[in-house]
Amino acid sequence: MKKYQRIAAQIKQHIALGAWRPGERLPSLREQMQQTGTSLITVSHAYQLLEREGVICVRPQSGYYLAEAPPREPQPPPGDPSDESVDFNGAIFDVLQASCRPDVVAFGSAFPDPGLFPQHPLNRALTRVSSSATAISVIDNLPPGNRALRAAIARRYAQQGMAINADEIVITAGALEALNLSLSVVTAPGDYVIVESPCFYGALQALQRLRLKPVAIPSSVTEGLDLDALEQALKRWPVKACWLMTTLQNPIGYTLSEEKKRRLVALLAHYNVVLIEDDVYQELYEGNTRPLPARAFDTAGNVLHCASFSKCLVAGFRIGWVAAGPYARKIQQMQFMSTLSTSSPMQLAVVEYLASQRYDSHLKRLRQTLAVRKQQAYEILVRHLPDDVVVHIHPGGYFLWLALPPDIAASTLYEQALRANISIAPGTMFTPHRDGEHFVRINTSRQWGSLDIDAVVTLSQLIQAARRAP
Amino acid sequence: MKKYQRIAAQIKQHIALGAWRPGERLPSLREQMQQTGTSLITVSHAYQLLEREGVICVRPQSGYYLAEAPPREPQPPPGDPSDESVDFNGAIFDVLQASCRPDVVAFGSAFPDPGLFPQHPLNRALTRVSSSATAISVIDNLPPGNRALRAAIARRYAQQGMAINADEIVITAGALEALNLSLSVVTAPGDYVIVESPCFYGALQALQRLRLKPVAIPSSVTEGLDLDALEQALKRWPVKACWLMTTLQNPIGYTLSEEKKRRLVALLAHYNVVLIEDDVYQELYEGNTRPLPARAFDTAGNVLHCASFSKCLVAGFRIGWVAAGPYARKIQQMQFMSTLSTSSPMQLAVVEYLASQRYDSHLKRLRQTLAVRKQQAYEILVRHLPDDVVVHIHPGGYFLWLALPPDIAASTLYEQALRANISIAPGTMFTPHRDGEHFVRINTSRQWGSLDIDAVVTLSQLIQAARRAP
Repeated sequence: MKKYQRIAAQIKQHIALGAWRPGERLPSLREQMQQTGTSLITVSHAYQLLEREGVICVRPQSGYYLAEAPPREPQPPPGDPSDESVDFNGAIFDVLQASCRPDVVAFGSAFPDPGLFPQHPLNRALTRVSSSATAISVIDNLPPGNRALRAAIARRYAQQGMAINADEIVITAGALEALNLSLSVVTAPGDYVIVESPCFYGALQALQRLRLKPVAIPSSVTEGLDLDALEQALKRWPVKACWLMTTLQNPIGYTLSEEKKRRLVALLAHYNVVLIEDDVYQELYEGNTRPLPARAFDTAGNVLHCASFSKCLVAGFRIGWVAAGPYARKIQQMQFMSTLSTSSPMQLAVVEYLASQRYDSHLKRLRQTLAVRKQQAYEILVRHLPDDVVVHIHPGGYFLWLALPPDIAASTLYEQALRANISIAPGTMFTPHRDGEHFVRINTSRQWGSLDIDAVVTLSQLIQAARRAP
Repeated sequence: MKKYQRIAAQIKQHIALGAWRPGERLPSLREQMQQTGTSLITVSHAYQLLEREGVICVRPQSGYYLAEAPPREPQPPPGDPSDESVDFNGAIFDVLQASCRPDVVAFGSAFPDPGLFPQHPLNRALTRVSSSATAISVIDNLPPGNRALRAAIARRYAQQGMAINADEIVITAGALEALNLSLSVVTAPGDYVIVESPCFYGALQALQRLRLKPVAIPSSVTEGLDLDALEQALKRWPVKACWLMTTLQNPIGYTLSEEKKRRLVALLAHYNVVLIEDDVYQELYEGNTRPLPARAFDTAGNVLHCASFSKCLVAGFRIGWVAAGPYARKIQQMQFMSTLSTSSPMQLAVVEYLASQRYDSHLKRLRQTLAVRKQQAYEILVRHLPDDVVVHIHPGGYFLWLALPPDIAASTLYEQALRANISIAPGTMFTPHRDGEHFVRINTSRQWGSLDIDAVVTLSQLIQAARRAP
């Protein structure tokens, strides 16, 4: 093989590996010369060969481009050694990834419609931050995170009458990192941890990852967490921690009353069990007053309150926090070892945005919009789904919880719907023992249009067809 | 207690909890009225009381501000239940936090001088990104991360002749998340993992956190990793993975030859052991050619190559990656469960910056500056430290590795130096059995001036005084 042929073969290999996309510019002859350490004539011959083969094309006065029709199909994603536990996580991953496909009607999505976020004010905040020198330095924003951001969060607690010290707040990569760090500092492998059933799948994954034993307490769609069952479990098992959502529980949407939250905190204090409170939907309540979290009733330093800006201000920034009480230092150490810190510009941009005093009016609009959209979606679902599909609706948030007839399996419906480019979140994602086969979570944060109505009609037809099947 | 007194007491409590810093503006009378649900007259009386007590001050036409002298000392940081393992991590955390204090000469810092980063081009990139709608959405940048960023990284591999598919690259929160995710997907608790001694403390912390058993292989300052000892260990123990730095090893600074890297990869392939290659300093080589990582010699899909932009472009963005080969999907799933994703604007900003074609010339300047500063620091240390302190220097990077005389303990020197506002990184941070008592790592990335020379003189005096002690 001649030298230019070898260079051409190398370039083809890089193309096959995805180094450039169709239509992207390749290195110039001079750059290629330097990279390959060969002469101009060799590189020029190699490019001519690739051009003749239709792999690349030349645009005069501009350069060489990868041909629009790629010479080879992209490689399939590499396979991996799999085991059963990963399959469960893989299934969840698939559901959420499917919801991100632009061709899919994303009823299964976990995320609020990004169109609801205040794009222009956020962008202005980011622009202002980008002129500051500290944005590029990690040092000022190491754990526990930017001081001004923690103080701003402490002030929001103070507005609710909650005395949370800025020094106990640790800024994290969204609430998810806050929750995971919290769980890892208060438990050791083999410990018993209480979760709700159904619950946020992230809790189940975290327990599995940290090799903790789940104790599932039923949360009903009409009553929420069963506190009597919780008390029984606390008596029976040496439980170390609870991971619960007391406000706008995901996936059900239920909010515990203040009275129940008080009883919950008292119970856990009595049994010396730590509560990791996942409060990511706290700002999406309906009505005039933000519900107090269980943390508000904590006097024992027993509740780690985890929340974020991801559901109510901006998801892409990945800024959350935990008010960790006496665990703050341990959480910082653990974060320092796992991700080091959240990015400086993102922390600073949220500080900038909050300083603009627009947050509360944005939240008010957001809550109103979400309430209207949820009501509209509810009416569409009730109108088009079979009568024995029960659509559960609670004030606040952007999820509806569907109870399917007993002869319909959510996981089968999920597979069928996805083939029709509709994603739903099957109830099996949310239960420790995958016994949520008769439930589906529906995201209503987007403004539904005719495509969505068509998708609901398709879901209805799939349910009816499944019922007729032998 | 009257109503206004109660409100004033509440506000004082919030102040004590750090809700506002001295000199910061408090809510206006109107805002306070809304937040407390009381009348204007009550709030006004409460503010007047606080003003009389010197807690707040009023600036006409502007509002109420927290007095510059805070009414109470800030609370001490909350204590936490501690155990031995946390103490080790706590000590490391303390060393690194001390290095961030503005009053400290930060020889112990792990970070490159942020002044070396291309602040203006990065800020321009961030500004451009901040006008895009996708910056606020998490959806386009979920694991494995932004497509254009992964393709840009794949192209840099291709420039070295390495065939890395963009689809096997996962974008992470710095290399630290990449390394931690890699270790967690290729091991289970109780597995044996090879680390170097000394090594990056993050590896030791990760092993501890994942309950893995470290097998320490000596890395000498003159020869680097001892491959014969490695082979013996592979024969003797059922090792699952290795976590190694083959280029610019932290803390020593040694770079293995290509020949040794080839032998390393062949050995590990023979014993079917995964290599997690920490290559965060890859761009900080000296000379004309970037050294190939061990991954370049991998034919078995056995090497996970972890790197980042944190040491060579910008630390505060927290953007790293792993080229994970067949493990890419598992890594994505694990990331999805732990931090969800890295922030969208940060990924997009790096793409923007790289598109400006300034990266290579920035890197060239960076390498030149670091080399000059390291040489200058080396000469200062050699001139001022006692003759029996050996200062080890290797090409590239920004660390020097000091060998202390046998009668001097690095951990004691660290304590003494810190009292003189000088941070050093004691060798005990870097060894699995804390047997690095006679070594110190020194960061030379800043331009040293007279303060630094004074600090070196102080270190010298501390060493001499310790020697004279009985």
